[in-house]
Amino acid sequence: MTKKIAPSLMCTDLGHVARDVQALDAAGVDYYHIDIMDGSFVPNFTLGPDFIQAVRKLTNKPLDIHTMVQQPERFVDLFQQAGADMMSIHAEATMNLQGTLTQIKACGMQAGVAINPATPLSVLDYVLPVADYVVLMTVNPGFAGQKFIPEMYQKIAQLKQKITDLHLTTKIEVDGNLGAQTIPQCVKAGADWFVGGTSSVYRARASLADNVAQTRQWLEVK
Amino acid sequence: MTKKIAPSLMCTDLGHVARDVQALDAAGVDYYHIDIMDGSFVPNFTLGPDFIQAVRKLTNKPLDIHTMVQQPERFVDLFQQAGADMMSIHAEATMNLQGTLTQIKACGMQAGVAINPATPLSVLDYVLPVADYVVLMTVNPGFAGQKFIPEMYQKIAQLKQKITDLHLTTKIEVDGNLGAQTIPQCVKAGADWFVGGTSSVYRARASLADNVAQTRQWLEVK
Amino acid sequence: MTKKIAPSLMCTDLGHVARDVQALDAAGVDYYHIDIMDGSFVPNFTLGPDFIQAVRKLTNKPLDIHTMVQQPERFVDLFQQAGADMMSIHAEATMNLQGTLTQIKACGMQAGVAINPATPLSVLDYVLPVADYVVLMTVNPGFAGQKFIPEMYQKIAQLKQKITDLHLTTKIEVDGNLGAQTIPQCVKAGADWFVGGTSSVYRARASLADNVAQTRQWLEVK
Amino acid sequence: MTKKIAPSLMCTDLGHVARDVQALDAAGVDYYHIDIMDGSFVPNFTLGPDFIQAVRKLTNKPLDIHTMVQQPERFVDLFQQAGADMMSIHAEATMNLQGTLTQIKACGMQAGVAINPATPLSVLDYVLPVADYVVLMTVNPGFAGQKFIPEMYQKIAQLKQKITDLHLTTKIEVDGNLGAQTIPQCVKAGADWFVGGTSSVYRARASLADNVAQTRQWLEVK
Amino acid sequence: MTKKIAPSLMCTDLGHVARDVQALDAAGVDYYHIDIMDGSFVPNFTLGPDFIQAVRKLTNKPLDIHTMVQQPERFVDLFQQAGADMMSIHAEATMNLQGTLTQIKACGMQAGVAINPATPLSVLDYVLPVADYVVLMTVNPGFAGQKFIPEMYQKIAQLKQKITDLHLTTKIEVDGNLGAQTIPQCVKAGADWFVGGTSSVYRARASLADNVAQTRQWLEVK
Amino acid sequence: MTKKIAPSLMCTDLGHVARDVQALDAAGVDYYHIDIMDGSFVPNFTLGPDFIQAVRKLTNKPLDIHTMVQQPERFVDLFQQAGADMMSIHAEATMNLQGTLTQIKACGMQAGVAINPATPLSVLDYVLPVADYVVLMTVNPGFAGQKFIPEMYQKIAQLKQKITDLHLTTKIEVDGNLGAQTIPQCVKAGADWFVGGTSSVYRARASLADNVAQTRQWLEVK
Repeated sequence: MTKKIAPSLMCTDLGHVARDVQALDAAGVDYYHIDIMDGSFVPNFTLGPDFIQAVRKLTNKPLDIHTMVQQPERFVDLFQQAGADMMSIHAEATMNLQGTLTQIKACGMQAGVAINPATPLSVLDYVLPVADYVVLMTVNPGFAGQKFIPEMYQKIAQLKQKITDLHLTTKIEVDGNLGAQTIPQCVKAGADWFVGGTSSVYRARASLADNVAQTRQWLEVK
Repeated sequence: MTKKIAPSLMCTDLGHVARDVQALDAAGVDYYHIDIMDGSFVPNFTLGPDFIQAVRKLTNKPLDIHTMVQQPERFVDLFQQAGADMMSIHAEATMNLQGTLTQIKACGMQAGVAINPATPLSVLDYVLPVADYVVLMTVNPGFAGQKFIPEMYQKIAQLKQKITDLHLTTKIEVDGNLGAQTIPQCVKAGADWFVGGTSSVYRARASLADNVAQTRQWLEVK
Repeated sequence: MTKKIAPSLMCTDLGHVARDVQALDAAGVDYYHIDIMDGSFVPNFTLGPDFIQAVRKLTNKPLDIHTMVQQPERFVDLFQQAGADMMSIHAEATMNLQGTLTQIKACGMQAGVAINPATPLSVLDYVLPVADYVVLMTVNPGFAGQKFIPEMYQKIAQLKQKITDLHLTTKIEVDGNLGAQTIPQCVKAGADWFVGGTSSVYRARASLADNVAQTRQWLEVK
Repeated sequence: MTKKIAPSLMCTDLGHVARDVQALDAAGVDYYHIDIMDGSFVPNFTLGPDFIQAVRKLTNKPLDIHTMVQQPERFVDLFQQAGADMMSIHAEATMNLQGTLTQIKACGMQAGVAINPATPLSVLDYVLPVADYVVLMTVNPGFAGQKFIPEMYQKIAQLKQKITDLHLTTKIEVDGNLGAQTIPQCVKAGADWFVGGTSSVYRARASLADNVAQTRQWLEVK
Repeated sequence: MTKKIAPSLMCTDLGHVARDVQALDAAGVDYYHIDIMDGSFVPNFTLGPDFIQAVRKLTNKPLDIHTMVQQPERFVDLFQQAGADMMSIHAEATMNLQGTLTQIKACGMQAGVAINPATPLSVLDYVLPVADYVVLMTVNPGFAGQKFIPEMYQKIAQLKQKITDLHLTTKIEVDGNLGAQTIPQCVKAGADWFVGGTSSVYRARASLADNVAQTRQWLEVK
Repeated sequence: MTKKIAPSLMCTDLGHVARDVQALDAAGVDYYHIDIMDGSFVPNFTLGPDFIQAVRKLTNKPLDIHTMVQQPERFVDLFQQAGADMMSIHAEATMNLQGTLTQIKACGMQAGVAINPATPLSVLDYVLPVADYVVLMTVNPGFAGQKFIPEMYQKIAQLKQKITDLHLTTKIEVDGNLGAQTIPQCVKAGADWFVGGTSSVYRARASLADNVAQTRQWLEVK
């Protein structure tokens, strides 16, 4: 099975990152998702290169940097040098989507295109061949704890179809309010990679290990 | 003696924040300085409200939020609700400096004006009475590890004179490359509060406790 | 018949708004359309919350606020508190179209998406279910007195088809140079609501009452 | 005595502008002040060229357009053609302050520089000779009903001194929360022109005529 | 045969423009392509109105101004007065695409829409009827010497189909890394006009005359 | 005598740059001034790195790049690699004036601060020690052919005094409408370097050689 789980470190206890990353590593998560916000693309702030560097020392698993920032082309080197393995940029945030994806790959990282819930799939028409993955936002970005937007199931399915039609291997990463109800439906629709937040990996009342195991089960939908 | 030390948590080991804050609390630091960057006012990103909330649970000492962001008036509530006790905004970053300082104080926080090395003191002419403190950047903001700009000694002294002339109690916080050489000169020039980074509180090879004690000694200049 | 007429108050005699709103109310208009401009999304300025408040006291009919402004998400509360019943935002002007529409509805207003003449309908692909209405600009926004763009008839028809295919009840509001020639064609193409300006409700030489009656007739096309 | 009163039409009953302008004309106000906002320089919107045109037909007194907008150089023609006699621009809002003032005068209007409460007078150092008047904001701009900032008395006096020292005739217009307490102190400090809002010309419970007469009395301080 | 060649004057020896334009004129190029950059839409700068005026005096052939600038609607007059015959604007750079194209034509110029490699063709849905030509970027804009993006062949073909379906005569101008390998494939896909740079008209080691002749041959593909 | 003349290449015949630079070199100009505009800091466009590279091959004299662009810190490498020897940035255009000047010098170029006519000298208070030269604009920037602003004579004198008081060797470069009347007064006021445009080096009816000789004479004022 190739479905993957990536905890969103924005949801981790930021006082005890080393402890939690060790637990998540042991629980077998596939990679880590780290959100970067600029107060303009989204009205919030989260983490930065120093945090990436700190996590880089704590794990060998891939670090996936999700930039929710304007003009992400300015920061490719910054994140690459901090230790990123994957970097996604929003199609809505750059005038040079094709070039920035190419630039990310030239730095040795996997390149992702992220799109907001309202953004049509047509923005991917000519960049899917250079994108290693697409980040489909299933909530509006900026804050944790928002509700899954139901139209996104169909969007996943439509994107999956598009990728299949083009004979590509681009992966679909879904991000936002993924849990008991939403994960199975996303799996059926065709999602590949799952960002885990407060409804899965970081559910209160259970250990990280149990939460990861539970999330794996949700992925096993037939 | 009223000189104060505030470690810059951007320089802390972000994998072990709880451990380090406990050590710094025990070492007697006065408050904590937390940098927020937006990729536009400065070309970097650091921390955000989630981090402030995490630190809020770890200490009772004041949290001083230094916003290096455009239009900081948009984020006063965001930081207040995350647990900030003090919030500084850059004079260069807002069209409504007087109103935003007033807004910060109305939320129950101490209000600071921050200014970059090149910014003239004249921008403070009509806001010193509403500012609890001024953050004088002694390096160019955005990244750790930069060199102290020598013209800043005179700038501190000139600001001190201005405050004295107006019979105000506004404090001068200095921020940037403060260590063995620079702290005593800043003390002599009139600085009150000192943000501690890699040249003082976070010097390699010594414990946080020893570093804080050493920094206190540098403050004892006559 | 469910076709509706909304006078654009930008075209009203701004010295005698109370008098004219009374006349328009008596003439049986369905609601009022109020344009807000920011000098950036369009190079002009018009009205604001104070005007909305003034009109709110003059009529019980719904007030429809058409924001031609960048980042309209900043102003949802402002317009709701001024008395708006409906608020439309431009798809071209926000990074968070889905979330802002949801926010407008959460405030108790009807939510509209407005799109400029050149904007493709694909931007509506994933937001039609949360939009109460779509504002199709049939002239380029910013100034009164411009010419109807003939490609917009087909755009109305294509949008109508899209709405029908999705089994939605989203309404189509057309805005721009609507009069004797253009209204019947818009009706045939599928438009529901009609913003009345200088070619219909505010034609010179006839009373507001006569103009509204005439406009109603144009809507009765078979 | 040359002190002048200019009602701020933003505070007028926008349903009955013709009636109120007639009353204000009869009461002997000197000119009218009209605020333009862009949602960016200040987070609000007010009026625009259509409103100016409407007022232009109602009175022969000068119309003073106070632009609280970014890059006002883009709109000099727009306001001139709408009927403006005076136009002020914010020093904080343009890269070309000298040139835009010159451009305003070349259009046959009086040119004003407006500055926010926190802005130092040094921004006027090299433009006072081309400015017909300076608008000193005595509250933070954007909304009616704010409190007078006491440091502004000294600012008026310092500006007056500067103008006197240069042997210029530049007028000082004060704008914001001017009433029984603040007007006399502004007069003493050296202000020339007074924008009347909800604390003077538009006080509730008294007629416009009585309010204008009362405001004149406050100006008669010795 | 109606295929056209337009040398990109950005690639000309800027010390000897008169000499080279004379040679290119003699070699029979069809028109000249001049790139304008603003450091924001693309991170580079090139030429401006003074250069256009200089070239205008050197040749009678049409001058095609390709604006890679934000808000090109501000500069239509500037380029028209400098001597432009054709002006293209990027769909990604303006909120008023339809209106700006109309404005360009009203000035007597041919109007083009330019789109970046990642931009979907849907942005052209409602403007093709007012566009004289479409500039399909086949490399990412901003710098010479980049590689042709292979997905662009299909994009040309899809655009050609769209134009044919609409019974329009809109021309397709391709721009970026056009040479021995890429020109014939672009011709087959349906391109009409070819911007010549360092891979064709400005190849090192051959004269401008020989290069133009060679480029013509590449266009003769069956 | 150390007064220097720098022709502004924006005014050169752009069809014959090699010819004119050769003539200017022979006439003994001291260095070349090249304006870069971004359509935002000023509403015009001029030249770019390709032009600098072309001129670099034509002369050994220093090339002085005057950037009239927003956020010039983004372009230091671009201009240095193109062959610049001196680079000036506008104080109004960057949040990091001190750091960008330092960055320019670290690249081996001389660093200049440029200020617009309205900008107060206080913006230089803390950067004069790191600036090799100050560019005092004596007209509003953006277009050739504007009138000298008389207040600038005093500004030059005040800056000269400031430099002298600080025992610095910073040079004053004046730029804008310098000719028979204005050059001698600028010399008396304390200017060091003179940008030559259409009123001096590029006067019509005289050769470049004669114009340079004439300009030298104007500099010889006692």
